[in-house]
Amino acid sequence: MAQFKRIAVVGAGLIGGSILLAAARRSLAGSLACWSRSEPSRATLSRFGVAEVFADPAECVRGADLVVVTTPVDTAEETFRAISPGLTPGAVVTDAGSVKASIQLAARRLPAANPFIGAHPMAGGEKAGAAHAHADLFEGRVCFLTPTSAESPEALGAVRLFWQSLGAVLHETDAAKHDEIVAAISHVPHAAASALMLGVMDQPGFRRFAVGAGLRDTTRIAAGEENLWVGILLANAHHLSTGLRAVEVRVAELRAAIEANDIPTLRRLLAEARIARQDLDRPE
Amino acid sequence: MAQFKRIAVVGAGLIGGSILLAAARRSLAGSLACWSRSEPSRATLSRFGVAEVFADPAECVRGADLVVVTTPVDTAEETFRAISPGLTPGAVVTDAGSVKASIQLAARRLPAANPFIGAHPMAGGEKAGAAHAHADLFEGRVCFLTPTSAESPEALGAVRLFWQSLGAVLHETDAAKHDEIVAAISHVPHAAASALMLGVMDQPGFRRFAVGAGLRDTTRIAAGEENLWVGILLANAHHLSTGLRAVEVRVAELRAAIEANDIPTLRRLLAEARIARQDLDRPE
Repeated sequence: MAQFKRIAVVGAGLIGGSILLAAARRSLAGSLACWSRSEPSRATLSRFGVAEVFADPAECVRGADLVVVTTPVDTAEETFRAISPGLTPGAVVTDAGSVKASIQLAARRLPAANPFIGAHPMAGGEKAGAAHAHADLFEGRVCFLTPTSAESPEALGAVRLFWQSLGAVLHETDAAKHDEIVAAISHVPHAAASALMLGVMDQPGFRRFAVGAGLRDTTRIAAGEENLWVGILLANAHHLSTGLRAVEVRVAELRAAIEANDIPTLRRLLAEARIARQDLDRPE
Repeated sequence: MAQFKRIAVVGAGLIGGSILLAAARRSLAGSLACWSRSEPSRATLSRFGVAEVFADPAECVRGADLVVVTTPVDTAEETFRAISPGLTPGAVVTDAGSVKASIQLAARRLPAANPFIGAHPMAGGEKAGAAHAHADLFEGRVCFLTPTSAESPEALGAVRLFWQSLGAVLHETDAAKHDEIVAAISHVPHAAASALMLGVMDQPGFRRFAVGAGLRDTTRIAAGEENLWVGILLANAHHLSTGLRAVEVRVAELRAAIEANDIPTLRRLLAEARIARQDLDRPE
């Protein structure tokens, strides 16, 4: 049974496309609408055959009771501005951006009659674009919601219902805390993986033929689309700065122990890292 | 048809245990022998039922025409000393250590009648111990050989035949070059993954519940046994020092671009890393 009259997805790449496929399969809405800036993306979305595809963002959101903004985080303000003229009063707006404080600020551009509740599903991957979308993307994944307590219970309820219906496991916190958490578990690792790839390819001994699963896994996320990640890293700059500095300190600490042939320190550091890593695989 | 009379595997953990299973399945030798320092490992090896299990290393190698040393790299010298009294003159010795220059030096402890040809199969994993051994471990994996040109063609031929028979793809180079290569593609990534795990767990925002595939993959190898890795990293200290310094520089470069809101530099760095990472997945 359709829980929403019409859901509009604004900016449909991997995340937006997957939302459309998941919402269609679960018959979440009476109808689906979507917009993408790029013509090839619109063509991909049309081929899915599940949503009405628009070339104008304001047209796309017209008549929707739930609007999901999935444009890159550095275009959030522009997107909110672009959809505002088309929003039905009372329509609830959510998003899927990897940072929340800056987007919450940008959401002030929305009409007062349209509550915004930020969301961040921890799903994605290094393969961007609607062409890689799939209906199971959110299944079992953590989805942060960052309500401000200013929104109505109905609006919050609608956003909860929406993300839960896609299979996500909700976790509610405030935008600032969210940004601190994802810096640690996602943004810092992303930048560190890029730095490792750059540092390793600089070495005279770097040989592609001998690369095994170790370096491949360690750098896998460095294959992510830089245009998406520039926006994310800059919008979370404060926590990135702190986190990357901590990584530099730890690399230098390991290096110093190696240079000093300091077996006890090196063993302790590697053991602490091993235990922490094994902990990630323990059930909660 | 058996290519060797008797193969002795000295120090049978993941690598040594897998060699035994692979050699048995391919009937590489008339008989197999093995030694492990630890009683539980010897029990595991006995359960495999493919090799005679010894509690004394010199006894283990007696009568073998090929001896494979698979003890941790920091015990190589001790192992060479321990097997020497049992070695049959002419028996060829190889190993599977992750560093080669220091082991080649340690191999001078072997009797003059026993040629040593270093080897390093790029196989392993964060699950150590004979209990995780499997017969396919070397299938399609790169295996470095580091001959010195001092050994006889027969000895080199025997070592080539042995590793190739286990399914490995041989790559011959000298010990110094080998150590430089594996620093870049394996040892530096290992230390960097440990440093990232330590840096991330230090962050106030670190939350296990939200950790996804990104951090998991990026730090997977940090779950490796520290006692093995202390020896490897210290035996390759020079290249580790250079490589880790390069990683520190690259992390600092990314951090500086983020702190300065320098979009062009950040985009360029992330793009270079993306392209290099995607290159790892291109066929040679």
